[in-house]
Amino acid sequence: MNKMVYIVFLFALLLSIVQASVNDFCVADLKLPKSNSGYPCKSPNEVTVDDFVFSGLVAKDTTNSSFGAAATAAFVDNFPGLNGLGISAARLDLAEGGSFPMHTHPGGTELIIMLQGEMIAGFITSNNAIYSKTLKPGDLFVIPQGQMHFVVNSGVGKATSIIAFSSENPGVQILDHLLFGNTLSSDIVSQTTLLDVEQVKKLKARFGGSG
Amino acid sequence: MNKMVYIVFLFALLLSIVQASVNDFCVADLKLPKSNSGYPCKSPNEVTVDDFVFSGLVAKDTTNSSFGAAATAAFVDNFPGLNGLGISAARLDLAEGGSFPMHTHPGGTELIIMLQGEMIAGFITSNNAIYSKTLKPGDLFVIPQGQMHFVVNSGVGKATSIIAFSSENPGVQILDHLLFGNTLSSDIVSQTTLLDVEQVKKLKARFGGSG
Amino acid sequence: MNKMVYIVFLFALLLSIVQASVNDFCVADLKLPKSNSGYPCKSPNEVTVDDFVFSGLVAKDTTNSSFGAAATAAFVDNFPGLNGLGISAARLDLAEGGSFPMHTHPGGTELIIMLQGEMIAGFITSNNAIYSKTLKPGDLFVIPQGQMHFVVNSGVGKATSIIAFSSENPGVQILDHLLFGNTLSSDIVSQTTLLDVEQVKKLKARFGGSG
Amino acid sequence: MNKMVYIVFLFALLLSIVQASVNDFCVADLKLPKSNSGYPCKSPNEVTVDDFVFSGLVAKDTTNSSFGAAATAAFVDNFPGLNGLGISAARLDLAEGGSFPMHTHPGGTELIIMLQGEMIAGFITSNNAIYSKTLKPGDLFVIPQGQMHFVVNSGVGKATSIIAFSSENPGVQILDHLLFGNTLSSDIVSQTTLLDVEQVKKLKARFGGSG
Amino acid sequence: MNKMVYIVFLFALLLSIVQASVNDFCVADLKLPKSNSGYPCKSPNEVTVDDFVFSGLVAKDTTNSSFGAAATAAFVDNFPGLNGLGISAARLDLAEGGSFPMHTHPGGTELIIMLQGEMIAGFITSNNAIYSKTLKPGDLFVIPQGQMHFVVNSGVGKATSIIAFSSENPGVQILDHLLFGNTLSSDIVSQTTLLDVEQVKKLKARFGGSG
Amino acid sequence: MNKMVYIVFLFALLLSIVQASVNDFCVADLKLPKSNSGYPCKSPNEVTVDDFVFSGLVAKDTTNSSFGAAATAAFVDNFPGLNGLGISAARLDLAEGGSFPMHTHPGGTELIIMLQGEMIAGFITSNNAIYSKTLKPGDLFVIPQGQMHFVVNSGVGKATSIIAFSSENPGVQILDHLLFGNTLSSDIVSQTTLLDVEQVKKLKARFGGSG
Repeated sequence: MNKMVYIVFLFALLLSIVQASVNDFCVADLKLPKSNSGYPCKSPNEVTVDDFVFSGLVAKDTTNSSFGAAATAAFVDNFPGLNGLGISAARLDLAEGGSFPMHTHPGGTELIIMLQGEMIAGFITSNNAIYSKTLKPGDLFVIPQGQMHFVVNSGVGKATSIIAFSSENPGVQILDHLLFGNTLSSDIVSQTTLLDVEQVKKLKARFGGSG
Repeated sequence: MNKMVYIVFLFALLLSIVQASVNDFCVADLKLPKSNSGYPCKSPNEVTVDDFVFSGLVAKDTTNSSFGAAATAAFVDNFPGLNGLGISAARLDLAEGGSFPMHTHPGGTELIIMLQGEMIAGFITSNNAIYSKTLKPGDLFVIPQGQMHFVVNSGVGKATSIIAFSSENPGVQILDHLLFGNTLSSDIVSQTTLLDVEQVKKLKARFGGSG
Repeated sequence: MNKMVYIVFLFALLLSIVQASVNDFCVADLKLPKSNSGYPCKSPNEVTVDDFVFSGLVAKDTTNSSFGAAATAAFVDNFPGLNGLGISAARLDLAEGGSFPMHTHPGGTELIIMLQGEMIAGFITSNNAIYSKTLKPGDLFVIPQGQMHFVVNSGVGKATSIIAFSSENPGVQILDHLLFGNTLSSDIVSQTTLLDVEQVKKLKARFGGSG
Repeated sequence: MNKMVYIVFLFALLLSIVQASVNDFCVADLKLPKSNSGYPCKSPNEVTVDDFVFSGLVAKDTTNSSFGAAATAAFVDNFPGLNGLGISAARLDLAEGGSFPMHTHPGGTELIIMLQGEMIAGFITSNNAIYSKTLKPGDLFVIPQGQMHFVVNSGVGKATSIIAFSSENPGVQILDHLLFGNTLSSDIVSQTTLLDVEQVKKLKARFGGSG
Repeated sequence: MNKMVYIVFLFALLLSIVQASVNDFCVADLKLPKSNSGYPCKSPNEVTVDDFVFSGLVAKDTTNSSFGAAATAAFVDNFPGLNGLGISAARLDLAEGGSFPMHTHPGGTELIIMLQGEMIAGFITSNNAIYSKTLKPGDLFVIPQGQMHFVVNSGVGKATSIIAFSSENPGVQILDHLLFGNTLSSDIVSQTTLLDVEQVKKLKARFGGSG
Repeated sequence: MNKMVYIVFLFALLLSIVQASVNDFCVADLKLPKSNSGYPCKSPNEVTVDDFVFSGLVAKDTTNSSFGAAATAAFVDNFPGLNGLGISAARLDLAEGGSFPMHTHPGGTELIIMLQGEMIAGFITSNNAIYSKTLKPGDLFVIPQGQMHFVVNSGVGKATSIIAFSSENPGVQILDHLLFGNTLSSDIVSQTTLLDVEQVKKLKARFGGSG
């Protein structure tokens, strides 16, 4: 018998084991409870190519919007193929004069990939340093995990960037929401930020907080 | 020959290998450059028991202080035996009426262990939730990695807690220092926090920032 | 329209995604089966602040006890907020003359934080080295993961320490229990430890083992 | 009362906690869905010693086989005690003139341990380098995770090796199966490999692919 | 004295420690030897904002090129701020009819972000499954770590995508280079791939291999 | 121009980047200081195939030995190609009646692969359970990381096993060496193990300890 038959036979032996244990991926079964390692895996038999595809990371229609703002994110909860793979993405479009306010991603690093226009991006370290740069199309800017950062449209016209994260679920902690969007008493916010109480109350009114 | 001789002989064979490759610990050689996994290890021959000991996590003398405040931390940079072990500790003493302001530890979880007095501790999630509790001696409170949190002495007299971190170098990002302690222009701070410019300038003056 | 409206609008867009995918924490659902990454997460809707609080890490009442010993541990199984966060704590009170016997924590590093009295703590490496120190209040002592170690009250009166671990479930392997608390035959214990069979049988009687 | 009683009492206190939280192991419950950290753990009460044992990593009967080939693997799916432990093993017997074709293990490193006969093993790096060696009994050869590699029986008579992997589920990607065992069109295979279309079709016929 | 003074004093105490141990980032010192955790960190004093910026992820000038192809990658070796952060990016422009051939990234997951034109992307699993999709602008497609994959321009005109990786150094294993770009003998390549020897030699000639 | 030229050109563009950043492996440079992630990498230019090969995992000549014992281990310190790859191996030959005494590997799981003869292997959990089995050729037995375990030759004639570890440097903590091979005082050993002092002194004499 020839070599071909021999090897195919060998394959068959091995594949009987392989097919029982493939771990090429672990698409999220969003109906089951999460754990520290993400979602349980869907049965491979139920996985289709669409689990690995997300559609709609496009500019939202800003001509019909009086604000010219659009933000879209593809995290594991709306893109289950990312489960366990340590990556996700978003798209940010800012109208002229716009900005994305101070925030952190406690669970991942952010990589800004500029497509259009001009933005100032910056992050602030525990050591009183500012790392800030005016970005143009083709520029990348990396914001290490957990650092407070911001983006401002510093140019003429719209500015657009793609953002990649080193986690399928990096989290977003927007500072104003943390401080002013909940029921923590204005006195405690003032005491622990040294902001004037009036300033705290003014922003609580805007961000829907009480207390 | 007896069994004892036999086994000791076996040990000798094995130990000749073991002694060349011990990895019981990796005490930081603070003189060499760090990497993402911490400091390179000191040669085991240079390690002494004092590398595994830190002294001074005691109450600072608050009777001589008009402020009654004391904070001490034992991280890898002043306690090299912690290198790579994913743990560190601090002690926080707050005088009556004192507080520790809003901050995050981007690199680790914090576990508060109350020893004396009473504190309100809380953290704020991205989802507008507040998890806050009044702590008494013997209480533990855990603040998950990267969450914005604060502590206020809510009792009569001094309050003391031991704090453990899930990293030998958890980092400390104090919000006021990030916003007001550096050279980021007041206009950008205002634009990206919605704080009034006057408020920003007032706090910049207090925290040593400019711009 | 003013800038405020613009940005709040932007927040609303983003938060609709954020709220579906928050991963600020993963409180253990203790009723579901564990995995290698800990317990599955409780639904955020069912989480309360008490999941992040453990009460009772205090000295047990040693005046009513003829032994003067008290030990308490807060691991993930009785403190579900620790799930996935890589930290836990215990409190150890030893009466004068007491000791905590030889043991290891296979799953985590131990950090001893001395509060009161005096203890000798030590660990033993594969290389025949002993790292041992007499600890006083305010001293820290770190025992790298997996190392055999012991603590002895070496002072006058009671000794107390807080212990932090670099795991929410470090495990505890007490040597006497391993060797003498089970059904492994005395002959095998003797053969594989070189302890005299009489010694093995004597301690098996004390620690509840048989065989 | 004597010291013994004192310490046993202390043990009892501690063990009541320990027994609730043991994490000595996490045997796979193969009936539950996997996650990125492996299978959920069986209840410790249902674990038996046989969960930690796999039998049959022996030479298959090659005298009754006209091919002289045998391959066996013990991965987590047929050896549930490996769950979460980052190790597995296989046995490969090759008849004279045989070979194991080009493949990768995307999830783990392979360590070949030669027992009998002679094999040429090699892997190929992204940098056009070949690391290849003729192995004899007692030789080890390590193939770093994800590298394309092959093994050829280069000696007289049968060759046997034990293979250890740094994962309980390393995966096996056999090149011919990837290229020729499925429904990907011959045109696309040809375009993206530069193989002649006739070559592609010839091998598709042999490996069960279509298109 | 007022509260402000009190708290600033507290900050000063803490910051003296913080400033000695900041770990906000670890920019690669490319001159020092790598380890398994990446490059050693540059001294924070030598870090500038440009370490966090990469410029040039733009379309190369394809009008001057007779091939219409351009590929650019920003990995840690040319973008040192990525060190340890688990993310990187590339840009791929394909002229009409072009393709990117079969390859794997052993060290990371790939996320394709379509900007322009139309591509068919696909990956092949160990289980004889093909996950393949025609992508249009705004589509994302994720290729789990270590999977063999390909991209073909399936549309009219140029096609462009941004690619993010879940590693600062994902590696690139191009199949044709592995098989035909080196000195591995044609006989062994043929034996371990079942390609005809003539096919092997033909492609070795094209890809610069010998043997 | 034909498609071939087009694609080769594309390769050239990409490979110029690839070749600067290959991370296919990280062979240990044993002359440089270790870190928590292992040894720094040798320059790829200095790596040869022999870095990936270890020779000598064979039975030591037991016919000339009055003890019939042989043990060999291939860890990263004598097999530098293992660096960072999470795997290593050893070979254990036991003469009739021999045993390998109680020990732990704090840094890795052990997988026993029986080749010849018969051994009883067992490990002991914190929960007073024994998992013990008589192993025959072709049996595997897994000992989870950090568990105390032992092996006894329970058959007639020599017994041989290959052992794989889930770490390139698992460490070996032999109980008798820890307790009796160093300078820890017999009183403390007795107090913290409850072994009789006479027993401690007897074994200290045998294992080279003092005190």
